[in-house]
Amino acid sequence: MRDDTSGLTLLGKTRPEYPSRVDPGVLETFANKFAERDYEVVMVTDEFTSLCPVTGQPDYGTIELRYVPGKECIESKSLKYYLFSYRQEPTFMETVVNRILDDLVQACSPRQMKVVGRFKARGGIAIDVSAQYRREDQPS
Amino acid sequence: MRDDTSGLTLLGKTRPEYPSRVDPGVLETFANKFAERDYEVVMVTDEFTSLCPVTGQPDYGTIELRYVPGKECIESKSLKYYLFSYRQEPTFMETVVNRILDDLVQACSPRQMKVVGRFKARGGIAIDVSAQYRREDQPS
Amino acid sequence: MRDDTSGLTLLGKTRPEYPSRVDPGVLETFANKFAERDYEVVMVTDEFTSLCPVTGQPDYGTIELRYVPGKECIESKSLKYYLFSYRQEPTFMETVVNRILDDLVQACSPRQMKVVGRFKARGGIAIDVSAQYRREDQPS
Amino acid sequence: MRDDTSGLTLLGKTRPEYPSRVDPGVLETFANKFAERDYEVVMVTDEFTSLCPVTGQPDYGTIELRYVPGKECIESKSLKYYLFSYRQEPTFMETVVNRILDDLVQACSPRQMKVVGRFKARGGIAIDVSAQYRREDQPS
Amino acid sequence: MRDDTSGLTLLGKTRPEYPSRVDPGVLETFANKFAERDYEVVMVTDEFTSLCPVTGQPDYGTIELRYVPGKECIESKSLKYYLFSYRQEPTFMETVVNRILDDLVQACSPRQMKVVGRFKARGGIAIDVSAQYRREDQPS
Amino acid sequence: MRDDTSGLTLLGKTRPEYPSRVDPGVLETFANKFAERDYEVVMVTDEFTSLCPVTGQPDYGTIELRYVPGKECIESKSLKYYLFSYRQEPTFMETVVNRILDDLVQACSPRQMKVVGRFKARGGIAIDVSAQYRREDQPS
Amino acid sequence: MRDDTSGLTLLGKTRPEYPSRVDPGVLETFANKFAERDYEVVMVTDEFTSLCPVTGQPDYGTIELRYVPGKECIESKSLKYYLFSYRQEPTFMETVVNRILDDLVQACSPRQMKVVGRFKARGGIAIDVSAQYRREDQPS
Amino acid sequence: MRDDTSGLTLLGKTRPEYPSRVDPGVLETFANKFAERDYEVVMVTDEFTSLCPVTGQPDYGTIELRYVPGKECIESKSLKYYLFSYRQEPTFMETVVNRILDDLVQACSPRQMKVVGRFKARGGIAIDVSAQYRREDQPS
Amino acid sequence: MRDDTSGLTLLGKTRPEYPSRVDPGVLETFANKFAERDYEVVMVTDEFTSLCPVTGQPDYGTIELRYVPGKECIESKSLKYYLFSYRQEPTFMETVVNRILDDLVQACSPRQMKVVGRFKARGGIAIDVSAQYRREDQPS
Amino acid sequence: MRDDTSGLTLLGKTRPEYPSRVDPGVLETFANKFAERDYEVVMVTDEFTSLCPVTGQPDYGTIELRYVPGKECIESKSLKYYLFSYRQEPTFMETVVNRILDDLVQACSPRQMKVVGRFKARGGIAIDVSAQYRREDQPS
Ligand SMILES: [Ca+2]
Ligand SMILES: [Ca+2]
Ligand SMILES: [Ca+2]
Ligand SMILES: [Ca+2]
Ligand SMILES: [Ca+2]
Ligand SMILES: [Ca+2]
Ligand SMILES: [Ca+2]
Ligand SMILES: [Ca+2]
Ligand SMILES: [Ca+2]
Ligand SMILES: [Ca+2]
Ligand SMILES: [Ca+2]
Ligand SMILES: [Ca+2]
Ligand SMILES: [Ca+2]
Ligand SMILES: [Ca+2]
Ligand SMILES: [Ca+2]
Ligand SMILES: [Ca+2]
Repeated sequence: MRDDTSGLTLLGKTRPEYPSRVDPGVLETFANKFAERDYEVVMVTDEFTSLCPVTGQPDYGTIELRYVPGKECIESKSLKYYLFSYRQEPTFMETVVNRILDDLVQACSPRQMKVVGRFKARGGIAIDVSAQYRREDQPS
Repeated sequence: MRDDTSGLTLLGKTRPEYPSRVDPGVLETFANKFAERDYEVVMVTDEFTSLCPVTGQPDYGTIELRYVPGKECIESKSLKYYLFSYRQEPTFMETVVNRILDDLVQACSPRQMKVVGRFKARGGIAIDVSAQYRREDQPS
Repeated sequence: MRDDTSGLTLLGKTRPEYPSRVDPGVLETFANKFAERDYEVVMVTDEFTSLCPVTGQPDYGTIELRYVPGKECIESKSLKYYLFSYRQEPTFMETVVNRILDDLVQACSPRQMKVVGRFKARGGIAIDVSAQYRREDQPS
Repeated sequence: MRDDTSGLTLLGKTRPEYPSRVDPGVLETFANKFAERDYEVVMVTDEFTSLCPVTGQPDYGTIELRYVPGKECIESKSLKYYLFSYRQEPTFMETVVNRILDDLVQACSPRQMKVVGRFKARGGIAIDVSAQYRREDQPS
Repeated sequence: MRDDTSGLTLLGKTRPEYPSRVDPGVLETFANKFAERDYEVVMVTDEFTSLCPVTGQPDYGTIELRYVPGKECIESKSLKYYLFSYRQEPTFMETVVNRILDDLVQACSPRQMKVVGRFKARGGIAIDVSAQYRREDQPS
Repeated sequence: MRDDTSGLTLLGKTRPEYPSRVDPGVLETFANKFAERDYEVVMVTDEFTSLCPVTGQPDYGTIELRYVPGKECIESKSLKYYLFSYRQEPTFMETVVNRILDDLVQACSPRQMKVVGRFKARGGIAIDVSAQYRREDQPS
Repeated sequence: MRDDTSGLTLLGKTRPEYPSRVDPGVLETFANKFAERDYEVVMVTDEFTSLCPVTGQPDYGTIELRYVPGKECIESKSLKYYLFSYRQEPTFMETVVNRILDDLVQACSPRQMKVVGRFKARGGIAIDVSAQYRREDQPS
Repeated sequence: MRDDTSGLTLLGKTRPEYPSRVDPGVLETFANKFAERDYEVVMVTDEFTSLCPVTGQPDYGTIELRYVPGKECIESKSLKYYLFSYRQEPTFMETVVNRILDDLVQACSPRQMKVVGRFKARGGIAIDVSAQYRREDQPS
Repeated sequence: MRDDTSGLTLLGKTRPEYPSRVDPGVLETFANKFAERDYEVVMVTDEFTSLCPVTGQPDYGTIELRYVPGKECIESKSLKYYLFSYRQEPTFMETVVNRILDDLVQACSPRQMKVVGRFKARGGIAIDVSAQYRREDQPS
Repeated sequence: MRDDTSGLTLLGKTRPEYPSRVDPGVLETFANKFAERDYEVVMVTDEFTSLCPVTGQPDYGTIELRYVPGKECIESKSLKYYLFSYRQEPTFMETVVNRILDDLVQACSPRQMKVVGRFKARGGIAIDVSAQYRREDQPS
């Protein structure tokens, strides 16, 4: 029962070129060998950072991705590179989460997906944003 | 994918004039770029304080705002100023939470909104109050 | 937006006479200014104590009151005095919680109310009791 | 509002004879004074121990009893003695929980009851077992 | 009320031969003495390890098995040996969880079963995978 | 190696008369069988309550006793009764802790003893008091 | 063993006039009845707030007072009023802690005293400040 | 670098005969291969139980052994059997800890050893006991 | 008792230019008004990030600064900017901490200073580094 | 201030050959650029596993390395490979920790070093082992 790793270009490389702007093109997937079953994958990192679009100051947060795969699964090292590409991006938190959802839905055509961003307090106020997607053929 | 920050007057200023009485007029919003989607924003601060209407003693608590934005999102620095305006206000906890809900619904016309206040114990008894709003066109 | 404190006799007094037996008559309420809205108030204290009806030994616990107010809200200092009146009362835990529920429903005619008592272990066994009330005109 | 303690033989005794095999006969109940109301009682102890039926080694765990009383409530000291009677009993965890449920349902005819056992890891694997009962006249 | 341990070959042996590749054949079961009742068994270990199929580096995680037994219960020491057999297996996390579910369903024909794997972060990204099975004659 | 329980009058009784004022006379001791060795005993309860000498309101706290026994050890049930005797006593926290230390030193002549009281917040301010004793023949 | 409460003017009053600027004159003490013994008193509140001297924004923190009393003990309600008097004071955190130490040493002439302030993060950086005093006749 | 396991009789057996009274003779040791170095071994179990010598009720606790080995190390499975032998022993907590220390010192002649027992609350009072040994040739 | 803020250039500005390489020149100080006393200031941020010098991947960590000020105190917003300047710096963790210590000692001439960096795991291994400085005229 | 990475052979490779037996030769170091200063480095992993020398069953634990570097620092990826080489090694916990200490002292000639292993419970008993080294020219 061997996993198909033939299409993965990043997992075997230690020093790829890092994207300098947000780039969904770095996302890679591998074939879902259990596509006949609805099951859930959760990927979490507390190493997300971007910049405030007004003050230029860095923001930090946690990104949680939760999805039911269709024919493809997100490869986790490529997800790391994609999230890394926000490092110099000026953006609101509400935009970050919706944009990640759009890019990941585009990349792997999941049955369902939810993205949650939990961002550290600025001015004493912390912000969490969560957005979700359901493929049209899926029951609610 | 640039966020529209043109209408924000407070985020770029370090020392605005602080309101001395509760003033919903300080609340500012920015355009929701993902208004076609129902998603949730949570804003939490543990830096809320007001005064007891009977004894004049300070009360302290946490305020949690949870909403599904309509066409506008609440800007977080203006929310900070609005909450700061309760600092010298004599008020019961039940009133604080309902009033914040009313003011924020008025400010951004959300699809749904919930406000929870968790206040520190007085006389050994802690009080939490939670109130919510649902726009008439929203399913329950 | 001033809260009506005219009917409160305990909140402004430091040394009222403490009741020596369980006395629901010490409970006071104030007018609910947001009675048109269903919202929830939670009051919690971890300073409850009574006596075991068989051994006379003290029991300790936490009381959590959770209700949707009707026309009246429970004033928290009077709740403190009411709970204090169990200090010398011999009673089972199952009785404490049901009796508090009955007395508080009687005092403020809420739309819904739940009382939970969490009592410290005796003989290595901890007991929690929870009981609830729903006004007849309320949907379940 | 006096609790009826007339039928309790264990609560007032410090040194009853301990059962040496599992004995549901030690369970005692007292009259439920609030039988007209559906309310929940939870009793928890982390002092349960029995023996492995294959290796003879001791097992340890937590037992949580959660029920809606009918006409009778379980007296907690008799519950302690009943659970103590498993101390020398060789038994699987799956059997412990189902057997406790059967014995307690028999003892107090509850409207609903759930028993959960959480047992410490053996060979690095912890086991939790939960079983429940619903009286035939109760809605699911 | 004696548990039937006659079919168990591993529980009484300290040093069986460990499987060197994934081997569902080591799984053993014992008769479910309470098969007339739907009840739940949870088995959890935080001692799971396998290898990354691309880099060969070890992965670590927690496996949680949650099921409603049919006529057979999983014996926990044999489960330990089965999970141990992944120690040298190169595999993705998504595959591990689905494969364990398939093997355990095959071994004990449960009414329902859920397997959750929570794996430690690689490259700052942790992965949890959960999959479940429901026998065809079971209501959803 | 049998412990000497001949002098204990409370441990075997379920319903002794409770003292109504602070009464160090209820304290009992048993012979320290390891008096040739300096070792430490810690006794902790979170079930202490007394009254405020100015407002009459109840105070709650945790009492921690830590001592190196001389020829006598404190029997724990008699310690419970002694601490229970503060239930109706109006007293400052600073006094409670020093008085308990004096009474316990008097009761068991320890080599060293420390008493710590941790009291719940009043007016948002929590108070901890700790006092200690060292017998004159003990090195510091 | 009655505590001397004759000099306390605040503890029996519910609504004294609150100071509007930092005022050490509101501090009150009572006689230390155990002055022959070195013992420690710790008073902690998490309800401290002041203002930033540059931006005017509110700061929040916890103040911990730890001292060995001389002839006088700090009365806790007067400490609350003293700390409340910083509510509108523009000040750095380093100044707050040193100033509180100076004022409290002046008020009660302790043998030793330590003040620790733990302030919530501003710009992602939290600040703790601690300062201590030792009376000249005390060994270090 | 092979460990010497030749003297161990229990580690390879699943079902030895369990001792029914406290029996230090079940303790086994293996040769300390690093005896030229002072290093520390800590062994902790939360599965200790004995009986109260007055009431016969079970007591539960945690035993922590901390020692610097001399020429012998304690084998952990034999320690388990030794501790298991207290299961039916009536004993005070102060006696348990001192006795375990004496037996283990006798068994392995350590350079230093400390035993701590942390026992669950009885009557709301928890007891911890700690005792230690230092070989005469060891510096304090 | 007014703090001297005359030399601070960053605290009043929302959008200064961020340094793009490590730049100790952005550090600012203010006069220590309590220089006659040895007291401690702790500044902590969990928002530190730099790059791995071999793989180019981002590292994340917490920086804790602990010092006894001499004539100058570190202004916290300038510390934030200084730490921000490591955002694109390729560096080992051992170097980060020692370099921060050198730069901060240079900036404020403290009596003592300690810097601790706690960095998130890479390859399953977390690294903490701590270094300290003591001015020559200070006792150890 | 560039770190010297010229001697590192593993950090830039994703798939080196893993050692199959304990092999201190895989350890690599880099030059300590701050060798004139005594500072501390802590490296922690909770991904250690080995085998029991008697039963062959896997053991799991956490390894914490704490050292003051001399002229060389341990490179963390090579430490990972070294620890990985215990995966199939039959060994007692006491041996693991002393052996790691010997190998790491040999590899980097530190001024001081301490190794702590915290291993998961077997038979309900957890074992921690800690050993340390101090170079002869170092003060104790
Ligand atoms: Ca958050
Ligand atoms: Ca609360
Ligand atoms: Ca509180
Ligand atoms: Ca409870
Ligand atoms: Ca468990
Ligand atoms: Ca469990
Ligand atoms: Ca995980
Ligand atoms: Ca996870
Ligand atoms: Ca306290
Ligand atoms: Ca802090
Ligand atoms: Ca903070
Ligand atoms: Ca304890
Ligand atoms: Ca306890
Ligand atoms: Ca770390
Ligand atoms: Ca760390
Ligand atoms: Ca351990």
